[in-house]
Amino acid sequence: MNAKPRGRQFFNNPGPTNIPDRVLRAMDRPVIDFLSEEFVAIQHACHAGVKRVMKTDQTLYMYTATGHGAWEAAICNLFSPGEKILMIESGYFSESWSQMGKNLGLEVETLAADWRKGLDVGKLAERLAQDKGHEIKAVLAVHNETATGMFLPMPEIRRALDETRHPALLLSDTISSLVSLEYKMDAWGIDITVGGSQKGLMLPTGMSMTGVSAKALDVARKSKMPRHYFNWNLMNGRQPQGFVGTAPVHMFFGLQESLKMIEEEGLDAVIDRHSRLAEATRAAVRAWGADGKGPQLYCQSPDRLSNSVTTVMMPEGVSSDPMRKIAIDRFNLSLGGGLGPLAGKVFRIGHLGDLNEPMLLGCLATTELAMKAAGVPFASGGVDAAVASLAA
Amino acid sequence: MNAKPRGRQFFNNPGPTNIPDRVLRAMDRPVIDFLSEEFVAIQHACHAGVKRVMKTDQTLYMYTATGHGAWEAAICNLFSPGEKILMIESGYFSESWSQMGKNLGLEVETLAADWRKGLDVGKLAERLAQDKGHEIKAVLAVHNETATGMFLPMPEIRRALDETRHPALLLSDTISSLVSLEYKMDAWGIDITVGGSQKGLMLPTGMSMTGVSAKALDVARKSKMPRHYFNWNLMNGRQPQGFVGTAPVHMFFGLQESLKMIEEEGLDAVIDRHSRLAEATRAAVRAWGADGKGPQLYCQSPDRLSNSVTTVMMPEGVSSDPMRKIAIDRFNLSLGGGLGPLAGKVFRIGHLGDLNEPMLLGCLATTELAMKAAGVPFASGGVDAAVASLAA
Repeated sequence: MNAKPRGRQFFNNPGPTNIPDRVLRAMDRPVIDFLSEEFVAIQHACHAGVKRVMKTDQTLYMYTATGHGAWEAAICNLFSPGEKILMIESGYFSESWSQMGKNLGLEVETLAADWRKGLDVGKLAERLAQDKGHEIKAVLAVHNETATGMFLPMPEIRRALDETRHPALLLSDTISSLVSLEYKMDAWGIDITVGGSQKGLMLPTGMSMTGVSAKALDVARKSKMPRHYFNWNLMNGRQPQGFVGTAPVHMFFGLQESLKMIEEEGLDAVIDRHSRLAEATRAAVRAWGADGKGPQLYCQSPDRLSNSVTTVMMPEGVSSDPMRKIAIDRFNLSLGGGLGPLAGKVFRIGHLGDLNEPMLLGCLATTELAMKAAGVPFASGGVDAAVASLAA
Repeated sequence: MNAKPRGRQFFNNPGPTNIPDRVLRAMDRPVIDFLSEEFVAIQHACHAGVKRVMKTDQTLYMYTATGHGAWEAAICNLFSPGEKILMIESGYFSESWSQMGKNLGLEVETLAADWRKGLDVGKLAERLAQDKGHEIKAVLAVHNETATGMFLPMPEIRRALDETRHPALLLSDTISSLVSLEYKMDAWGIDITVGGSQKGLMLPTGMSMTGVSAKALDVARKSKMPRHYFNWNLMNGRQPQGFVGTAPVHMFFGLQESLKMIEEEGLDAVIDRHSRLAEATRAAVRAWGADGKGPQLYCQSPDRLSNSVTTVMMPEGVSSDPMRKIAIDRFNLSLGGGLGPLAGKVFRIGHLGDLNEPMLLGCLATTELAMKAAGVPFASGGVDAAVASLAA
C-alpha cells in the first residue's frame, strides 16, 4: 500500500459486501448457550425470516460454512456416487460446482453456454427430451453468476423440465442473488436454493443455507453419498434444526438484525433498490464505452443483466489490475477483479446489500478517477448518466 | 424464562466460552476484501500465531466450519474408504468421531475405556503390537474430553506407537484443550491437531483448524476419499492458504486480537491460570461431596483431571436439570449439561478461555445457591475450599 488510506473504505466487491453498523453492533455482545431457550427462540425467528426471503414454506438447513459448504450439503445429501447431474455453464462458479460434483464422485455433464450470452433454454429442453431414461438426476443452475454479472431465467428453466416431463431436481445457486434479485423458490418450482451470509443478507462470511423442497427431501432418503458434517439426518434431532457441532451463535445475532432491517425496508423495496442502483451502474458503463474504445458491459444479454454485480470488460489489451490497485491504494475504493480466465480482462462492481445512491455514485466517480490515473481509455459522462438514471 | 435476567450473564459452559470485549470490538469493523494485501497480511500473522500456540512448525489449514468440520477435513484428506482407524474411547466426543469415521466410509475400531477412568495405555500398546500387518492407519484420541472432564496423556500414547514401532498416524482433538492445557504438537509427535475457535481461542463459533505433520501430508497424497469443501489440495493455491469459498474475514479480525491477548499474557501464564482455576473448581466439588452424599468429580483418574472443564456427577437419583434451570433462569448463570448418556446425571463447569478468579468464584458460589434452591444435597464449604486453593 502506497499511503495510509483515509476516510471510510468504499467497498464495492460483489462479496463479501458491506455489513451495516446495526448488524455489527448486534453481533458485538457476549455469547449465550446454543442450547438455551433464548438461543433456540432466535434460531426459530431466523429460520422463519430466511424462509420468507427465499419465498419457501418447505425445509431449510443452515450450516457453519461458506456457500460452497451449502452446495456440498446439497450434493452429498441428494445423490449417490456415479449418478449424473447436468450443470448449466454460466461462468467461474458453474465451473466450480462442476468440479465439486466430480470431486464428490458424480458424473457431471456440462450444458455448454457462452459466458457473455448465457444459456439457450431451447438447448436445455432439447437435452432433457433426449434423456428418455432419465439418467440426469438434477439440473444445476447458478441463478446469478457473480463472475460474469448475468442471471439465469429460473422460471424458463423450470418450464423446460415441465414441458419435457423430466423428473430431475432443479438446484439453484442464489449466493449472489438472494435478497438482491427477485426469487421465488416455491412458486418457481426450485428444489434446492443455496444461499450464503455475506451478500444480500449483509453478514460476515461464515454461514450458509439451503432451502430444500419436499421432493428433494424424498430423493435424499435414497442417497448413498458418504457424509457427516453436512448430513441433514444429523441435523434433524432438534427444532428448528441441530448443527453438527456448536451452533454459530454470533452469526444468528447478526442474521436476526439483518432480517429485521430487510423487513423494515420491505423485501420488494430492497429488490427495487438493487434494480435502480444496478441500472445506474450500467448507465455509467455504457457511457464509458459509448465511443467503442472504452470499457463495455461483459454480459451481452440485455434481459439477463444482474442487479447485484456488474462485470466490466476492459478495452482490448488493457489490464484491469493497475486501475484496481490505484483505486484501493490511493482512493480506498475496493473493486472486484476478474475470476479464472477473466483475471485482468474485467473488473467487477458489486452493488448488492447495504448500499445507497451516494455510496454507488462515489464508487462510480472514483472508478473514473482510477481509470484516468491508470491511463485506461474511456468516454466521459459516466457519472452524469448514472445520476440521470437515478433521477428518472 | 421466569423473569428478565439482570446483571451480566456468568457463562460457564465449556464451549462456546466467554469472548473478551477486546475481541468483540476487534470484530466490530467493516469488511475488507479477502484477496487484498491487507487481509493476506492478517492471515499470515494469524497462521503464525496459531502455529505458535499449537507448538508446531509444520502445516496449518483453517476452515470456515466448527471443530467437527476440522475433524472431517482430517479424515477425508488422510484416508481411503474401507481403511481402518483405531479410536480411543473417552466419552461423547470420541463416540462422535467414531460415528463420523463410519459415516465417511472407514472401518472404525474402538479401543474401549471406562469414561470415568480413561484409557489404559498398556492396552493400546498391546493392540498395536498385535497389529503386525499395520492395518490400523491411525490412532485417534480426544486430548481433552469435553463431556467427561478428563484429558489423555498424549506423550504416553505416542510412546505406545513408538515402542511397538507402529507407523499409524496419531490424530488429536484439542478443541477444548488448545491454549488451556499444555500441548506440544511437534515435540509430542502428533500428526494432526484439531482445534476450534470458540474455546481457548476465545472467539465466536465458526472457524476451526488442523495442524498437519509432514508425515500426514505425505499420507494424504494417497487418499482416495471423495472431498471438496475440506480438500487441502484446493487450499494450496494461495499463501498462507486459500479457502474453498470466501475467507471468513471477521473471524480473522477476532483471531488477530485474541492471539495478541494470549501473547501479552504469555502462553505459559495462560496455561497456569487454567490450572489454578481448575484446581479451585475441583476443591469446591470435593468439598460438596466430602460427606459422600453430595456431587462428586466424574473423572476418577486424579492425574487426568481436565484444566478446562470439570464434570460434576450428581448424587444418585438427583437430576442436574432443575438445578441448571434455576441457575440460568433466576441467577443468570449458564452451566453445561450432560451429553449423551450423561444427560441429567452430571453438569459441567467450563473454566476455560477468558476467565479470572471473581468470575469463577461467582460461578461456584452461585452453583451452591442453585443447588440449595433445587434441593440438591451437598456439603458446605465449597467456596471456602476454592478460595483456599486460589490463595495457596
